Amino acid sequence: MKDDGLVKEVPSKSGSFPDWYTAVVLKGELADYAPVRGCMVIRPYGYTLWECMQGLLDARLKATGHVNAYFPTLIPESLLNREAEHVEGFSPQVAWVTHGGAKELSERLALRPTSEAIINTMYARWVKSYRDLPVLVNQWCNIFRWEKATRLFLRTLEFLWQEGHTLHRSEEEAEEEALRILDIYVDFVENDLCVPVLAGLKPESEKFPGAVRTYTIEAMMPDGQALQSGTSHNLGQGFAEAFDIRYLDEDNTEKRPWGTSWGVTTRLIGALVMTHGDDRGLFLPPRVAPFQVAVVPVLFGKQDEAVLAKCREAVTALAGLRVKLDADTNQTAGWKYNQYEMLGVPVRVEIGPKDVQKEGAVLVPRDGSGKRFIRFADLAQEVNGLMDGVQRGMLAAARERVRAMTSEAGSFDEFRARLDAVPGFIRVAWCGSAQCEGQIIEETKTTPRVMVPAEQDRGDAPCIACGRPTGKRIYYARTY
Amino acid sequence: MKDDGLVKEVPSKSGSFPDWYTAVVLKGELADYAPVRGCMVIRPYGYTLWECMQGLLDARLKATGHVNAYFPTLIPESLLNREAEHVEGFSPQVAWVTHGGAKELSERLALRPTSEAIINTMYARWVKSYRDLPVLVNQWCNIFRWEKATRLFLRTLEFLWQEGHTLHRSEEEAEEEALRILDIYVDFVENDLCVPVLAGLKPESEKFPGAVRTYTIEAMMPDGQALQSGTSHNLGQGFAEAFDIRYLDEDNTEKRPWGTSWGVTTRLIGALVMTHGDDRGLFLPPRVAPFQVAVVPVLFGKQDEAVLAKCREAVTALAGLRVKLDADTNQTAGWKYNQYEMLGVPVRVEIGPKDVQKEGAVLVPRDGSGKRFIRFADLAQEVNGLMDGVQRGMLAAARERVRAMTSEAGSFDEFRARLDAVPGFIRVAWCGSAQCEGQIIEETKTTPRVMVPAEQDRGDAPCIACGRPTGKRIYYARTY
Repeated sequence: MKDDGLVKEVPSKSGSFPDWYTAVVLKGELADYAPVRGCMVIRPYGYTLWECMQGLLDARLKATGHVNAYFPTLIPESLLNREAEHVEGFSPQVAWVTHGGAKELSERLALRPTSEAIINTMYARWVKSYRDLPVLVNQWCNIFRWEKATRLFLRTLEFLWQEGHTLHRSEEEAEEEALRILDIYVDFVENDLCVPVLAGLKPESEKFPGAVRTYTIEAMMPDGQALQSGTSHNLGQGFAEAFDIRYLDEDNTEKRPWGTSWGVTTRLIGALVMTHGDDRGLFLPPRVAPFQVAVVPVLFGKQDEAVLAKCREAVTALAGLRVKLDADTNQTAGWKYNQYEMLGVPVRVEIGPKDVQKEGAVLVPRDGSGKRFIRFADLAQEVNGLMDGVQRGMLAAARERVRAMTSEAGSFDEFRARLDAVPGFIRVAWCGSAQCEGQIIEETKTTPRVMVPAEQDRGDAPCIACGRPTGKRIYYARTY
Repeated sequence: MKDDGLVKEVPSKSGSFPDWYTAVVLKGELADYAPVRGCMVIRPYGYTLWECMQGLLDARLKATGHVNAYFPTLIPESLLNREAEHVEGFSPQVAWVTHGGAKELSERLALRPTSEAIINTMYARWVKSYRDLPVLVNQWCNIFRWEKATRLFLRTLEFLWQEGHTLHRSEEEAEEEALRILDIYVDFVENDLCVPVLAGLKPESEKFPGAVRTYTIEAMMPDGQALQSGTSHNLGQGFAEAFDIRYLDEDNTEKRPWGTSWGVTTRLIGALVMTHGDDRGLFLPPRVAPFQVAVVPVLFGKQDEAVLAKCREAVTALAGLRVKLDADTNQTAGWKYNQYEMLGVPVRVEIGPKDVQKEGAVLVPRDGSGKRFIRFADLAQEVNGLMDGVQRGMLAAARERVRAMTSEAGSFDEFRARLDAVPGFIRVAWCGSAQCEGQIIEETKTTPRVMVPAEQDRGDAPCIACGRPTGKRIYYARTY
C-alpha cells in the first residue's frame, strides 16, 4: 500500500492552531497540496462548497445590475506599467510568461495579479457616451501572485476569486458603488458564511495600489489574527487617466469616468474553516454546505431493506435540501458518523430498525446541541427548522467569540498588555502618521486593519504612539 | 470622438463568410480582440450566453454523477514530460512561465494546455482502493495553447472549457464512460444549441495525444468546413502507468485503473454563430439565449405611461423567461428592432398605444416567420409556444442544411468533384493507411473527420486513394 499523504488525525484546535487548520482542510477533503510549490488543488468537496458560495454572491451581484464577463489572463508588461502605483504594488508578485511554444516572446506577459490594467484597456474602447455608463462588470477567474510563505486557501500562488470593475459618471456614484458592494460583502459573509466582520475604511498605508480609498471587511480568527476577507476600492479617476477612458457627456463635453474595483476570494473558505471547525473537523453553515443533511442507515443484516427504504423515503421528504444518502455497506454507521462530522455536514439523520418500527428517525445536529428522536412524519419540518437554527446559532457563536476578542486600549502599554492577554482587534487612537504606524508594527507585529467610522468617534484622544491628540480611531491586530 | 473599433455593418453571409463571422461576433457584442495577439475578451453578452450553456451541460454532468473540482494552471515541465505521446502532441503549443517576481524559476512551468498531467498526479495520491473508483471529476477553467493562426472563439491562445477526467475499474467501464459523455455532448449540442453533429470515432491520426480511442462530435459550418465541437477520449491505462496510479482491488491485488478525459470549449459559441446567424446578425436558440424575449415599447410622447405600464405587465406575465425590457428613450423603437435582431434575441414583443387600446401586443420571432398580433391575455402562452417552435425550427433548418452538405463519393475523382460542387462531409471508403491519408490531404486539403460506425458499413469497397478493398468508411471534410 502506498502512503496516502493525508493527515490521519486532527490535532486539537486549542493546541497547535496552524496544524489543526491544515489537518482539517486536508482531512475534510477541501484541498490538497499541488506539485508546484505554493499551489493547491481544490478537491470536489471544497469546490462544491465554493460553487454554493458563488451562487449566493453571484445572485446578489446580478440583482444589483452587475453582469459577468471574461478577460484574458495574460497582460502585456507595458499595460501593467501604465498606472505607476499599481505596478509598483504588484510587480514583486508577478509571474511572467516569456516563451510561447519554442519561441521567446518579444514582450513578456504577466499572469494577471488582478485585472485593472486589461479591463480598463478594453473599457477605453467600449465607453464612448454617458449612455454607456455605468459599466457594472464582474469576472469569476483565477489569479496569480508569487507569494513567499503560503497556506492552503489563505495565501497561495494561484487562487480563485471574483473581481468587479465599474465605471460611473460621478465621484458620488463611484463612492456609492464601492459602499454598496461593501454592504453586499458584509451581508454575504455574515449571513451566509456566519463569519462576523468589521467593515470600514483601510488606512492610507493599506490601500490597494492605485486606489483613492479602500474599504475592507476584516474577520477575526480564533488564534487572534485578523483575516482580510474582501475589499472594495474607490479608484477615483486614476485608472481612467492611465488608460485614457473618456466619454462624451450630455453637455457635449468629454469627461473621465470614475471607477471602482472589488473582490473576494477562495480565502473565504479558510475563514469558514477557522471560524466554525472544531476537534472533530469541519462545521459548515447550512446555507453553503455541499451536503446539508447526511442520511445514515444503521444496518445489522436484518431488516436492512426496510431501513434503506425508509432512508430513501427520508431523501424524498427532504427534497429541496442538499442530501447525501450513504448506503455504502463497506463502512459501519459509526465510521460514517465520524466522517460526516469531519466533513461538517450540519445535520445527520440516523435510521435503524428500531426507528423504522417506531416510525421515527434520530436527528443529530453538528453543533453539539444533542441528538433527538423525532416522528418520521415531522422529518422535513424538523430538519428545515434545524437548518435555520444551526445557521443562526453559528453566527451568534462566532459573534460572541469575536466580541470577546475585541477591545480598546488607551495607551501603548495597555495595548501591549491586551495583546498578550487576549489577542484580537484592539481599538486605539492613532494619529495616522507613517512614523507611529512603523513603531507600532515593529514593537507589536500588529498592523492597522480598519478605521472606526468617524461617527463613532468620541472626541480627541492621544495617539498611542506619539501622544499627539487625534480624532481618529482604528482597529489594530496581528494578521494573516 | 474616438474611433470605436467596432464593425459598423455586417457583410453578407453568402459573400465573404469569414468577414461576416467576425463582424457578427464583434457587433453582436459576444467578444472583442484583446491587447495580446490571439487572445479575446468575452464581453458580458457573450459570457452570459456561456453561462446559459454551462448551466445546461453542467446539470447533465452532475445528473450522471460527476463533480467539479479545480486543479492548478501551472504544470511543471517534468510532469508534462511523463507521458511521451502527450508531451510530443502539446509541447509546440505550450506557453511557459519562467519567472516568479524578480526570480528565475528552477523549473519552468507550463500554462495548462490540458490537465491530464496534473490531475493524474493527484489521482495517484488519492486513489488507493477499488472503493475510491470510479473517480468522476470535471473542471471548468481556462486553457492556453500557443496557436499561430487565430479566430475569435474558434482558435485563440486562451479559451474556456470544461474537462472531465475519470478513472474506472475496468476497460469496459472506461469505454462506457467515454461513450456516455459523447451521448451527452450530442444531446447538449443538438437539442440546446440546435447544431447537428456527426458523432463517432476519430481515425488513428487524429487521436488525442496519449489516448487509445478518441470520439468526436463534428459540426458542418455553412462554408463547407467541419468544426470539431467536442471530444471524448478513452485513455486506456496509459496515464495510469505514466503517473503510477494503482488501487487495491477486492481480490487484494494491486491494479491500474482505466481512464477517460473529455471536453467542450467556448468554440461552441463560434458554432452557434455560424450555424444560425444571418445578414441581420446573431440568432440564438431560445434555450441558451441570454435574453429570450425583448420587450420594446413604441413611444410617441402621448400615452407613453400606459405603454410602459403594459410593457412592465408583459415582463411580469413572462416570469420564468429571460426578458429584456428596453425602455431607453434615447433610441427609437426601429433602432431597437435592429439591435435585438443583431443580438439574436429569439422573440421580440412590441407594444404601442394602439396595442394597449386593443388589449394586445405584436410578436416578432427572429426566425423570419412573420409578425403576429396577439391578445395580451394570451401573451405567456403564445411566447412560450414560440420558444419551443423556434428551438425546434432552428434544429430542423440546420439539419436540412447539413443533410444537403453531406454526400458520398465512390472514387477519388468523384470526391474531388463533390468537393468542388458542394463542400461538406464526404463519405468515402478509406483503407486507413497513413500514405492514403497523406495523399488525400495533400491533393484536397481535407482531413479525415469521423469514422462511420461499423454497423453502417455495407461490405468492402475500394479505398478511394489506393483502390485496395476495405470495410472502413469515413467522413472527410475541410476543417477549421
